[in-house]
Amino acid sequence: MSVVEQLTAELGILVDTDPVVLDQARADHSGHASPGTPLAVVHAETVAHVQAVLRIATATRTPVVVRGAGTGLAGAANGGDGEIVLSTRRMTAIHEIRADDLLAVVEPGILNADLNDALAEHGLWWAPDPASRAISTVGGNIATGAGGLLCAKYGVVRDAVLGLDLVLADGRLLHLGHRSVKGVTGLDLTSLVIGSEGTLGVVVGATLKLRRLVEGITCTVTATFPDVRSAAAASAAVTASGIQPAIMELMDAGSLAAVAALLDLPLPAAGSAQLTIQTDGPASVVEATTIAAILESHDGVTLVSHDREEGEKLLAIRRAMHPAMSALGTTLIEDVSVPRSAMPAMFDEIARIEQKYGMAIPTVAHAGDGNLHPNFIFEGAEPPAEVWAAADELFRAAIALGGTLTGEHGIGTLKSRWLADELGDDQWELQRRITQVFDPLGILNPGKVFTPRA
Amino acid sequence: MSVVEQLTAELGILVDTDPVVLDQARADHSGHASPGTPLAVVHAETVAHVQAVLRIATATRTPVVVRGAGTGLAGAANGGDGEIVLSTRRMTAIHEIRADDLLAVVEPGILNADLNDALAEHGLWWAPDPASRAISTVGGNIATGAGGLLCAKYGVVRDAVLGLDLVLADGRLLHLGHRSVKGVTGLDLTSLVIGSEGTLGVVVGATLKLRRLVEGITCTVTATFPDVRSAAAASAAVTASGIQPAIMELMDAGSLAAVAALLDLPLPAAGSAQLTIQTDGPASVVEATTIAAILESHDGVTLVSHDREEGEKLLAIRRAMHPAMSALGTTLIEDVSVPRSAMPAMFDEIARIEQKYGMAIPTVAHAGDGNLHPNFIFEGAEPPAEVWAAADELFRAAIALGGTLTGEHGIGTLKSRWLADELGDDQWELQRRITQVFDPLGILNPGKVFTPRA
Repeated sequence: MSVVEQLTAELGILVDTDPVVLDQARADHSGHASPGTPLAVVHAETVAHVQAVLRIATATRTPVVVRGAGTGLAGAANGGDGEIVLSTRRMTAIHEIRADDLLAVVEPGILNADLNDALAEHGLWWAPDPASRAISTVGGNIATGAGGLLCAKYGVVRDAVLGLDLVLADGRLLHLGHRSVKGVTGLDLTSLVIGSEGTLGVVVGATLKLRRLVEGITCTVTATFPDVRSAAAASAAVTASGIQPAIMELMDAGSLAAVAALLDLPLPAAGSAQLTIQTDGPASVVEATTIAAILESHDGVTLVSHDREEGEKLLAIRRAMHPAMSALGTTLIEDVSVPRSAMPAMFDEIARIEQKYGMAIPTVAHAGDGNLHPNFIFEGAEPPAEVWAAADELFRAAIALGGTLTGEHGIGTLKSRWLADELGDDQWELQRRITQVFDPLGILNPGKVFTPRA
Repeated sequence: MSVVEQLTAELGILVDTDPVVLDQARADHSGHASPGTPLAVVHAETVAHVQAVLRIATATRTPVVVRGAGTGLAGAANGGDGEIVLSTRRMTAIHEIRADDLLAVVEPGILNADLNDALAEHGLWWAPDPASRAISTVGGNIATGAGGLLCAKYGVVRDAVLGLDLVLADGRLLHLGHRSVKGVTGLDLTSLVIGSEGTLGVVVGATLKLRRLVEGITCTVTATFPDVRSAAAASAAVTASGIQPAIMELMDAGSLAAVAALLDLPLPAAGSAQLTIQTDGPASVVEATTIAAILESHDGVTLVSHDREEGEKLLAIRRAMHPAMSALGTTLIEDVSVPRSAMPAMFDEIARIEQKYGMAIPTVAHAGDGNLHPNFIFEGAEPPAEVWAAADELFRAAIALGGTLTGEHGIGTLKSRWLADELGDDQWELQRRITQVFDPLGILNPGKVFTPRA
């Protein structure tokens, strides 16, 4: 029997070979698509389904690509020739919500926003908030170690997971981590699996660390600056003041112009940049006032709102960034992260690269944590060589400034060729050997993350 | 040449074979001592010294036990027959303190309290605060994944490290992690090394994530309750209220009596228990008032102070717990952790075990995070069989309640026989194989943590 026949014999209609579905499973939201087409997409609905797929995959040495909602930005969940795409998107159950223990036990396919809607009824939330939260799954957030807008104050996925249920390549189920706040029993495999992009196993359950909804007024401050460097310096001054905003987003001139075009807003002055900052919690009003004063002392023209709905409208300009880029052409969204103090220097590097390559690189940044998203726009499906050349300079500049290739999107297929540049060859090899402990046959997402260099 | 001769040829007077020093290196603060005596203690002063020791250890297949200040409570840093004890206690440099990036780069031998004294001059602190902070090293805190009193609000060591420099068993140096707030490049080996108790490599440098000192008034609330169960229920009610205290410590009757005897205080009413709670930050005064009302509604007799020094005096009763226990005999400090809602049930289990074995088990708890420290008191150097039998029941009870063997002290030698009970055999074996990737010859802390079961 072929692999698909074996899968179908065991899992019936969960095994999907509809050409449209197979084609969709080739790509994620990075725009990048696998050159080939997977054998099948299996829509697992239970842990037992996942185990069955992996037992067949192990017996037949068939590669498995785990996939949630397919909203990744590094190509890690793209399925190709000869591969089984194992979707956990239908595993959406919430098994437990415990307000007293501030935890929830969920399946991986639930959307981040759906989970948070359910938690809100209990006065709770799960803090990780990638920009994709309305459409991305908790399992995908865990697989990539996702970040988002609120991270500087409220942490990333790694700070918000207590335990994971993991199916290994051979189908065995492990329970990693704890239900208690503290726990140091053995090695921290929960943290190791977070951000491992489908290379160590399949996350089939997660015990999440929750927060209580923040009470009080959410204040929003926006400020327009004559140029991006002064906006970056102003955001650094806010950080240096000791105030911790919930959100601090920076948009450069190219980003503002693209969003203005999309939303039919008046065009901002040429070269101008913007900060959008939110404060929350018991001191939010005082903090917003202090922040506005800091921004004004850095030549910012400010607007302060104490109204949550009006604040959301101001933030909508930032949230429109991705559609605004897509309206201009195919987009490669980059994701470098640097120490906060290096943000102005990183913007200088981006300006230098724009000049050198004669291309615009509209950039937004999570300014509170030094995570920048420079956008490359091009025609056609795949980035042309000069885009990759410019991106290569961008990565090297970030690493030289003490930063990293990827703050929150991951390595996937798109950045695997730079991974050893950041890790060093010794660490790259050590990490690859760790994946072999989990997956001795190398059937979990082969060719992703740890691609041997040519 | 013998191993000691080789070490001495390369490292000279750093190689210490003074019998007093060797004897001290056999034990940590758990009271437990290795039956044998190590070959030598090497007082490394540089990364190169650490690498030299490990190259000789690899060439000669000699076991290496890494040691900081020796304040561990699980025997993980105890040196025995045929072993090199590699001390990083003299590596105390602070290479960098960056208020703008909220990070510090330090060597592992610096004491937690000394680091925090230096950081305070910059308005900064490193949040992990094990009770041993005045005498324990940052490297030791990292090796154990230490917790402390402030964890529910401010996190544990794992939440406060950005990157680590690690010397592998063969002497190679790796740089793990990032300087940026976000970073998902490859596997998170930084988190894997935290809490690995000397089994993966030697931490020779750490990039720490700092916080700004919390401004405002620190308020302290103490409350006395008729019994420990009502104190536990009151602490759960505080957690359920949504207020996050900085510190919430619970002491049972046996603990209070022992401290009263040590400090010459009036004896509390028989059976009574106490909560000591601190609030900080902009809402601290309001929070303290609300907390006092909650405690009173749970039959607590409260005392509220807005004075930091008076608060420290109230907390001194809790901080005197360890000396109070030592005054009674040799102490085995246990460290189970359970979901917060299970704390009253865990106290019931402790009462049951006390009755069954006819022994007192004075217990304090970090009530904000469900981490309990039951104390076994005995005569002589090693716990007698009935203490281990009672501890065994304690561990099984904690695991049955959804908890863990160890919240913050680690496995070391003292708990290795229970490790597979919690992890399961499959995960235990997987973890052991991961240690083999780092240390293929098995020379790093052999016989600790992953001891094969008899």
